[in-house]
Amino acid sequence: MSDVFQKIKKGSSEILSEEDLLEKLKLNRPLRIKAGFDPTAPDLHLGHYVLLKKLKDFQDAGHEVCFLIGDYTAAIGDPSGRNSTRPPLSSEEIKENVKTYQEQVFKILDPQKTKTYYNSTWFDQFSGKEMIQLASRYTVARMLERNDFEKRIREGHPVSIHEFLYPLLQGWDSVEMKADIEIGGTDQKFNLLMGRQLQREEGQSEQSILMMPLLEGLDGVEKMSKSKGNYIGITEAPETQFGKVMSISDALMWRYYELLTDLSSEEILAMEKRVGQGELHPKEVKIRLAKEIVGCFHSVEAAEEAAEQFERSFKLKEIEDLEDKIILNDSNQLALYQIVREAGFATSGNEAKAKVKAGAILVNDEVYSDPFMNIEIPEVGITLQGKIKKKRVRQKIRIKQN
Amino acid sequence: MSDVFQKIKKGSSEILSEEDLLEKLKLNRPLRIKAGFDPTAPDLHLGHYVLLKKLKDFQDAGHEVCFLIGDYTAAIGDPSGRNSTRPPLSSEEIKENVKTYQEQVFKILDPQKTKTYYNSTWFDQFSGKEMIQLASRYTVARMLERNDFEKRIREGHPVSIHEFLYPLLQGWDSVEMKADIEIGGTDQKFNLLMGRQLQREEGQSEQSILMMPLLEGLDGVEKMSKSKGNYIGITEAPETQFGKVMSISDALMWRYYELLTDLSSEEILAMEKRVGQGELHPKEVKIRLAKEIVGCFHSVEAAEEAAEQFERSFKLKEIEDLEDKIILNDSNQLALYQIVREAGFATSGNEAKAKVKAGAILVNDEVYSDPFMNIEIPEVGITLQGKIKKKRVRQKIRIKQN
Repeated sequence: MSDVFQKIKKGSSEILSEEDLLEKLKLNRPLRIKAGFDPTAPDLHLGHYVLLKKLKDFQDAGHEVCFLIGDYTAAIGDPSGRNSTRPPLSSEEIKENVKTYQEQVFKILDPQKTKTYYNSTWFDQFSGKEMIQLASRYTVARMLERNDFEKRIREGHPVSIHEFLYPLLQGWDSVEMKADIEIGGTDQKFNLLMGRQLQREEGQSEQSILMMPLLEGLDGVEKMSKSKGNYIGITEAPETQFGKVMSISDALMWRYYELLTDLSSEEILAMEKRVGQGELHPKEVKIRLAKEIVGCFHSVEAAEEAAEQFERSFKLKEIEDLEDKIILNDSNQLALYQIVREAGFATSGNEAKAKVKAGAILVNDEVYSDPFMNIEIPEVGITLQGKIKKKRVRQKIRIKQN
Repeated sequence: MSDVFQKIKKGSSEILSEEDLLEKLKLNRPLRIKAGFDPTAPDLHLGHYVLLKKLKDFQDAGHEVCFLIGDYTAAIGDPSGRNSTRPPLSSEEIKENVKTYQEQVFKILDPQKTKTYYNSTWFDQFSGKEMIQLASRYTVARMLERNDFEKRIREGHPVSIHEFLYPLLQGWDSVEMKADIEIGGTDQKFNLLMGRQLQREEGQSEQSILMMPLLEGLDGVEKMSKSKGNYIGITEAPETQFGKVMSISDALMWRYYELLTDLSSEEILAMEKRVGQGELHPKEVKIRLAKEIVGCFHSVEAAEEAAEQFERSFKLKEIEDLEDKIILNDSNQLALYQIVREAGFATSGNEAKAKVKAGAILVNDEVYSDPFMNIEIPEVGITLQGKIKKKRVRQKIRIKQN
């Protein structure tokens, strides 16, 4: 029991409450683990995997994953029309997205221990009157305390009234599903708690809540997301995944170990210590992480092959033009992809961006995968290295822009 | 045209906009004048009459009154359960209330020029999805600007989210009814404007808005309302109405003239001037007002009879006990009804309250109808006069209360 609990707890940022969750784990029956999915963005990446992996931990302990597809709200979209990233989806699009989603999810989860629910099943029956009654179950003041609402309003961004209804809908899903536990990101805390309130009011026992941290993207700063381009996709090719992992900072590497691998916290700490004492080279540790991740979504063989190819690709076939100079604007900075293009590693901006994203460019022997990263070029210049050539780049001239 | 407009404008506190309204009046067709009614409080009083009279002005000019019965929301009540004065009503109760309401309203309005709408007609068809879409049409920030929401939240009173939906429902009523003009109290401004927004968004021409002030009750301070006991009911007996009018202050008398009679502003001003110059006794002016009001809800004959009875009742049959002393607490004030009981004009507190409310007690020759009014008793005492006796009341002793 304690081992199961330790595994479940690993990497989580908050559990409400631990006592509750422990009690439930003692019930000696498969628990219903709820996780919501918004069927608008079916391309899963490692940010989603943090949650999926936790669900897998529950399945391994004999519990049942209950996926909630939020197709009801997805079909409404953002009716205020302000959020262009949330257009209403047709039921065909939703079905297609769910199919794509499941194909990815079942690379990780056991389909036999997974149930899928659609919240349209209950909400399509909801009358306007029932919606009003649901709305009456929460106060404006408490809704405003929700951080992002207060902030958005204070900053003058419009928050439409229907956005106050969505957390209540999400909470109601827990009632309909009789969830024992709900898993979500830390940014979902408010909505997860809503489920507890509504379940309590409906005479159900309240779901426990397990929150996972939001995974930082390759840049190590922003949350991993497809729209920011700082992601590693679950279905991406082995070499791509491998190259992207190799591009992260050493600090982020430890976080990825914690949240994305099966290594215990003790093992990770031990490695970190050895690196600190110079007994282990960080590059070796990063290669192991990249192999772990590729192995998880592809196979151990694919991981080995990707590792070999990665090493090979940086053994230069020829070294040419050891010196190159590029034009800078009035700062001595330029976006990485522009430097790559100017230095002749690509013939267009788009090609340059793609190469950087794919981890195919080393800057002073490090991989950076954000094409928009600003690179400062000191007087001594920097070394750019692609798969077939290597260049030293210096400033040529500064042009004062107006 | 100008005469009609002057009559319609009389007494109003705001018109949005006058130009708009003038344009509409020139359309040469019967306009649809919307007025909402919440079927929870069917006992109409002069506060309601301020609006009804304005509707009558429109009918007299050939327009059509469209009553909106808010039966949909009345049947929901206050689902948060916090507002005990708003229990959900059954459809039988609503029907009964509407019947009582119409009996009263058609004492004033022409049934031939009045149409009645029930908003359940359209809202019963509303799905939960349509309710969400309606909710998306307004922002939280603007809803919070609505004075009473902001104030209630600031003071820590709970405002449930469904209360944000009700103004939108009221606005949607205007869309369904294709209202040309909506009439309401100044406290309804926000909701009235909501109708304009939604009509505009639906491609309709926006309703003009005519707001009437809220009538002060007999105390001259608080808004007239049944729950505060400071009202004159439309169906009350002639003598009751007469006595209550006689109990108001001289200042309030002019306001009642403006809002409740057909006298023009010029005529009222002229009377006020004559009273100021001592050419006219305010009591005479008040008697005329009382007659106007009783005449409006009963008949000219009933008004005359009530006036005679009022005069008669204060011609004392006997004068007894010219001196009486009563016990006061540590202040030298007491509620009027307590003085009345202590002085022997009633044998119970309830009887005393009823007598005061009915205007059957004069205090220093003035009628006060609020039984809870605090009366300060100076050393020289005060004179109490009932229908059959008159007493001078002095303080007897002060008992210090702990």
